[in-house]
Parts: sequence; structure tokens; C-alpha cells
Amino acid sequence: MVANVPLDAADAEACGLTRVPVDLGARSYEIVIGRGALAEAGARIAEVLPGSRAAIVTDETVAGLHLEALRASLDAAEVGHEVITIPAGEASKCFSMFQTVCERVLDAKLERGDAVIALGGGVVGDLAGFVAASVRRGMPFVQLPTSLLAQVDSSVGGKTGINVRHGKNLIGAFHQPSLVIADTAVLDTLSPREFRAGYAEVAKYGLLGDAGFFSWLEANHAAVFAGGPEREEAVAASCWAKAAVVADDEREAGRRALLNLGHTFGHAMEAVVAYDGARLVHGEGVAIGMRMAFDFSVELGLCSPEDGARVETHLTAVGLPTTLADIPGQMPPAETFLDIMAQDKKVSRGALTFVLVRGIGEAFVERGVDPARVREFLARELERESAAR
Amino acid sequence: MVANVPLDAADAEACGLTRVPVDLGARSYEIVIGRGALAEAGARIAEVLPGSRAAIVTDETVAGLHLEALRASLDAAEVGHEVITIPAGEASKCFSMFQTVCERVLDAKLERGDAVIALGGGVVGDLAGFVAASVRRGMPFVQLPTSLLAQVDSSVGGKTGINVRHGKNLIGAFHQPSLVIADTAVLDTLSPREFRAGYAEVAKYGLLGDAGFFSWLEANHAAVFAGGPEREEAVAASCWAKAAVVADDEREAGRRALLNLGHTFGHAMEAVVAYDGARLVHGEGVAIGMRMAFDFSVELGLCSPEDGARVETHLTAVGLPTTLADIPGQMPPAETFLDIMAQDKKVSRGALTFVLVRGIGEAFVERGVDPARVREFLARELERESAAR
Ligand SMILES: NC(=O)c1ccc[n+]([C@@H]2O[C@H](COP(=O)([O-])OP(=O)(O)OC[C@H]3O[C@@H](n4cnc5c(N)ncnc54)[C@H](O)[C@@H]3O)[C@@H](O)[C@H]2O)c1
Ligand SMILES: NC(=O)c1ccc[n+]([C@@H]2O[C@H](COP(=O)([O-])OP(=O)(O)OC[C@H]3O[C@@H](n4cnc5c(N)ncnc54)[C@H](O)[C@@H]3O)[C@@H](O)[C@H]2O)c1
Ligand SMILES: [Zn+2]
Ligand SMILES: [Zn+2]
Repeated sequence: MVANVPLDAADAEACGLTRVPVDLGARSYEIVIGRGALAEAGARIAEVLPGSRAAIVTDETVAGLHLEALRASLDAAEVGHEVITIPAGEASKCFSMFQTVCERVLDAKLERGDAVIALGGGVVGDLAGFVAASVRRGMPFVQLPTSLLAQVDSSVGGKTGINVRHGKNLIGAFHQPSLVIADTAVLDTLSPREFRAGYAEVAKYGLLGDAGFFSWLEANHAAVFAGGPEREEAVAASCWAKAAVVADDEREAGRRALLNLGHTFGHAMEAVVAYDGARLVHGEGVAIGMRMAFDFSVELGLCSPEDGARVETHLTAVGLPTTLADIPGQMPPAETFLDIMAQDKKVSRGALTFVLVRGIGEAFVERGVDPARVREFLARELERESAAR
Repeated sequence: MVANVPLDAADAEACGLTRVPVDLGARSYEIVIGRGALAEAGARIAEVLPGSRAAIVTDETVAGLHLEALRASLDAAEVGHEVITIPAGEASKCFSMFQTVCERVLDAKLERGDAVIALGGGVVGDLAGFVAASVRRGMPFVQLPTSLLAQVDSSVGGKTGINVRHGKNLIGAFHQPSLVIADTAVLDTLSPREFRAGYAEVAKYGLLGDAGFFSWLEANHAAVFAGGPEREEAVAASCWAKAAVVADDEREAGRRALLNLGHTFGHAMEAVVAYDGARLVHGEGVAIGMRMAFDFSVELGLCSPEDGARVETHLTAVGLPTTLADIPGQMPPAETFLDIMAQDKKVSRGALTFVLVRGIGEAFVERGVDPARVREFLARELERESAAR
């Protein structure tokens, strides 16, 4: 059992599921984690939202793989439901799909106490969550995350939203789910590349605040990938970590910014490749970004080179990219990265904000990082990149 | 001074403005009311949201009348701003305008701490408020209501939203403003019909919970219409009344439903005329609906006929309609009204909910009203209607 999971709350139940509470006062809820949890979704939903009907929002890929199991579970619990299927992929997080899904939920004649259920990855969760936040000014929302990224990151914390041409996730709402069910068995059908991308976020929790968890991952990553009970432990530990930060800072005023470790560099890379998932998916950008955040911290004299090396070694061991050279295609000059980072929404009134580290498990938010130091660092990264090609 | 306004808080300031606090914990804010308050908007906004830039959302009609005064006030306070003008009228509360205004706010490069300012009636306030709730998952929002309805009703309480083909206000958010400034002088340019429609909501506060205020209105309505200091008092008393209910029940779980006095019948009438503002505007439907709610309560033996008569007399005195016969055009059968009311979002799991009265100032929520009694009552109202034509 992972060290930072309190034993009482994580005690295996009769059915072998792990429960992680998210403590948000009146908006508190539970994350239920484990192999086969989807089969219990109907009963859990009927328990948390008695008498509710539901609209399931899912994407075409996930519908083909896991929708029948969910429907059977809802039928068994006599939870009436309709299905709204959207195309798979980031492009579905847009205004027109938002309108379409809102209207389909109203077509289904759901009332204010009925539920919107997201069955899918972060795209489905973010879109369906914004719909749930907006229809009748807020309907109950249930997350059934099916990608590793969604299980350990996007389904926890209440952020929902869509993309606009100005950037990703710029329109949305904070809307907490009433229940999250993460069935770790559904990850068996996820592509290895998507699984690895989600794993970058798992490693992030260790790197930002829990050195013990990172050591555990160094020892157990193969079993996490293979789908043993270690996978469930890793998902649970990640949810605990994110839930703790979210409970502390629901509306992202302060500490929640730590979750952006690796993301300032990562988002810039995603923008540079114009969000072309063939070249770079989010978690890959985060992996490279975390390695860079460590090396940048080493360069600033904040962190030991040994810790920087350990990060690179582990990410490489699981098959994640760690350098700009790992991204197919041409990279632009350092200045382009800086421009993008300055536009990033984490910029507050002009100053550059970074999550830096004093070592593994010791991240902190630094506001007002000197752009000249960032430019120098990036220039060296880019030299290393062109040398590697 | 109106009896239910505590003297300390409503104390005239140096500049003669009235301040009504809305007590919502961390989301508390103030409503500033008075002739000429718009000239102070810049200074107040700079005080409440120091360092912020702003996007003003307004409609074409209001822009022509009051935008320059606001811009001058913002300039004087050095609050940088952009203007986003939408067509006047209910049709602007739609998905495509929501998208357009969101994008225009992002075009203006507003950051998360910058403000969206609504300058206009309820249409502008509801749309701009939903935009403010959604851009970057929530930006500060300032309401400068310019219609009487917006000053006493839509700008207080945090409800925002747009319409869809399924009904009005079905998509939106609860998003409290940081500040509301109601300049009672801008109402001088409002059409008499729109002023009267807003007055129906003023009278509603007396009828639902404050018999003393209703008596005061019976004595002072002419001065409220003429624009004397009584207008400011009536707006302030209405804001106090709504703020008290909202503070008690922010997310509309219980007591807030009292604000729907007259609205179940009223909404049905609006639907019957297909929201054709030439035939019926919202406040007119509310006036007729309140008179009907009183007479229905009299018929149920809950309320004295004298109170019912007083309501009809007062609404007629200010020029508001009180019967179905006052609506131009043909009325459908009682069954049509019932069908519409059953679809109304105030219906919870099939039961008909009404706000009924035990007398002036004594409204209460009755769940599970017998549809047969409503049908009978409506049939008699419709007979009276055809007799009157
Ligand atoms: N709300 C938040 O806090 C938050 C946090 C991080 C990321 N996000 C968002 O999450 C999104 C990325 O999430 P994602 O990586 O899950 O993307 P995704 O939802 O697009 O899923 C990735 C791909 O995997 C497929 N898939 C999902 N589950 C599967 C399964 N069990 N078997 C087979 N295929 C499956 C999907 O159909 C899709 O093609 C981004 O839009 C990002 O902005 C949100
Ligand atoms: N959010 C809430 O709690 C709430 C409550 C009640 C009503 N509403 C909404 O409010 C809307 C109705 O509000 P409304 O009656 O203010 O409608 P509105 O905004 O359309 O204004 C009515 C008309 O008056 C004009 N106008 C506004 N101020 C003026 C001024 N000072 N001088 C001259 N003309 C002026 C407008 O241009 C418009 O043509 C509806 O959409 C309704 O759903 C919301
Ligand atoms: Zn991420
Ligand atoms: Zn109204």
C-alpha cells in the first residue's frame, strides 16, 4: 500500500474497491477505484442520487468498448438513461458540441435533480462537466473516467470546459461531481501511448510533493503498466494527492498551482506543435516539461543534479519522452516559446510564474522568474535538440 | 424611508447614494442605488477591483443613451476598457451571442482578475453574467442595470443564462457580481411600458412578504413613476427584499421559490403568446399572474377577497394589465395552460408547485396543487376573458 494513503479510508471493501474522499464541505464526494468498478456504477449512482434519471455522454471509441457494461449496470439498478455520443478527440471540446450536448440533455427531458454521466477520457469529462454545470444552472454530475489521465487528473477537482481559438480550456466552469468511479480494468483497452501519457501525471504527484511515492513508482512502475493491484494503488495515491490540493484550494487561488509542475514548458510545446496529437500528446509534453523544470531548477542552484538525473531516468524507463529532440519535426527559436509562455493564463499581470523544485517531492511556485534566465535555459535545450538530430 | 430598510445601512452618504449589502459570505457584495450613481461607477469599480481592466457589454439602445457617461466615469478612474455591443432584445440571449461575447472578451485580452461589466437591462445582465461566469471559469462581474426590472430583480441574486428552444434561461450559471450600481436616473429614458413591467416586480416584493411596503406603494406609486426620491426608496426596498431571500437560499433550494409569485401563471401566458413582446412583456404576465394567484388563493379559501381586490386595484392604478382579456389576440383552452405549467422547470418530479397567499405579504410555496382545481380556475378566467371581448 502506498505510504500516503491512510489505511482506514483505503481499506479494501468486500468487493475490493478503494474509496478516496474529496473533502469540499457541502460539495464533498467520493472517488471509487478498482478493477470492475464500472459494474457497480448503477448501484452507486442510485445510492448517491436516489430516483435520478441520467444522460450518459461518451465518445465513439469508448462507446464501442465500455458503454454496454455501463448500461447493463444502470439497468440492473433501474436508473433510466439516454446516451449522447460525441466524436472522439480534442476537437469535440468546442462551442458547437457544447450546444449540441446541452440540447440533447434537454431533449432527454432530464430535470434539475437528474444526472449527467461522463464515460470517457478528459475530453468527454471536460465537455460533459461544463454541460452539467450549465443546464438548468447546474445538474448533478458523475464521472466515469476511462483514460489514465482522466482517472488521476481531469476527473478530480471540478474543472470543466471547452477550447476556443484563443487557447485551451478558456471557457468553462468549476463544477464538482457527485461521484467519481475509476475502473482500472477499462484502462486495459487504452493504447500504450495514451497510458504512458497519463502516467506522466501520476509521476508528477510524486515529483511535486511526495518523494516516497516517487520511489515506490521507481520500484513498481512495471506492475502499474501491467495492470496488477499496483495500478489501483497508483491511481488511488494520485487521487489522494490531487484531492488534497483541491480541497485546500478549490478555485485555484494558490497551492493548486503546484499541479502545473512541468505544464508551463509542456503547454508551450503543445502550442508549438499546434496541438497535433500525432507529434505530441499532453502527457508527453508534461514529461518533457517536468524534466526541464528539474534541470532548470538545478541550473538555478535550487535542486541537486542527482535528483534531476533520477527524474530523467525514470521517465525514460517507462518510455516517456524527456527532451525536445523527442518531438518529431522542427522546433522554433527560444523566443517563440517565451512568447507563448507569456500568453499562458498562468501569467498574472505580466509576471512569469513557474513551478520550480528544491528536489524530488519539493515543488514550489515562483512568481516573477527572470525571463532572461528562461531564455538562456531554453536556448541550451534547443542546442541539445539540434545536436541530437 | 421604507420601513424594512434598516436605517444605519441605508443612511444617505455624502453623495446621497443608498447602499444595500448582499450577504453571501465570501461572495458578499454591495448594491449602490441612486440618481447619478453611474457617474461614480469608475471610482467604485477601481475600489472594489483595484488594477482591473474591463469589457463593457451593452445593447445598441442603451449604448446610444448611457454608454458615454459610463466610459467617461471609467476614464476618470483610469479603468481601461473595451465595449462589446449586442442587438437589443431577448433574441440576444442565445448560444451564438454567448460564443461571440466570450470570444470578444478574450480578444480584449482580459485576464482572470479583470471585469465584465453589464450595462443594460436583464438581457444584457443575464448574457454578460453567463459570459463572466464562463470565461476562464469565472471573472469578476459588475452589474449596471438600466431597466427597472434589472435594478430590482435580475441584477440581484446571481442567476445568469441564455434561452434555448426548450425554454427560457435553461442554460446558465449562478455567478454573483462583485458590485451592482443602480442609477435610478437612467430609468428616465425607459419606455413607460417597460417601467410599468418592472414595477410589477416591485409590487411583488410587497405582495409576497411585506404588507407594509405594499401599503407604502399604494400611497407613493405616482412618485416612484415620476422619479422622485421615492423611486430610489422603492428600488432599495426591492433589493433588500430580494437580497434577503437570496442570502437565505443562494442556489434556489427552498425559500427563493417565493420570488416566483405570479410567475407560474405569468410564464404560461408568455409561452402562450410565444414570447411576443408586442403582446405581452414579462412584467405584464407577472402582474396578471399575481392577480390570478391571489384570486386562486381566495377561491381555495386561503385569502380574503378584500386582499384580492386590493391587489387588482393597485395594479390597475399604475396601468398594469390584470386579466387574460388584457392580452391582445386569442387565448387557447385551459388545457394548453396546464400543459405548459407542467413542463415548467419549477415542476419537481411531476407535481405542480404554486406560490399561493394567505393575504397581502403572506406568500408560501405549495407543492402538489391539485391540477383539477387549477383547470377549473383557469376555465373561469377564460370565460371572463371571452365575455370581456
Ligand atoms: N479538467 C481537468 O482538470 C483536466 C486536467 C487535465 C487534462 N484535462 C483535459 O483532458 C483532456 C485529455 O484527456 P485524455 O487524455 O483522457 O483525452 P481523451 O478524452 O481524448 O482520450 C484519449 C483517447 O483515448 C480514448 N480512450 C479513452 N478511454 C479509453 C479506453 N478505456 N480504451 C480505449 N480508448 C480510450 C479516447 O476515445 C481518445 O481517443 C484534454 O482536453 C485536457 O485539457 C482536463
Ligand atoms: N437573472 C435573473 O434573476 C432574472 C430575473 C428576472 C428577469 N430576468 C431576465 O431579464 C430579461 C428581461 O429584462 P428587461 O426587462 O430589462 O429586458 P431588456 O434587457 O430587453 O430591456 C428591455 C428594453 O429596454 C431597453 N432599455 C434598457 N434600459 C434602458 C434605458 N435606461 N433607457 C431606454 N431603454 C432601455 C432595452 O434596450 C430593451 O429594448 C429577460 O431575459 C428575463 O429572463 C432575469
Ligand atoms: Zn496535465
Ligand atoms: Zn419576474
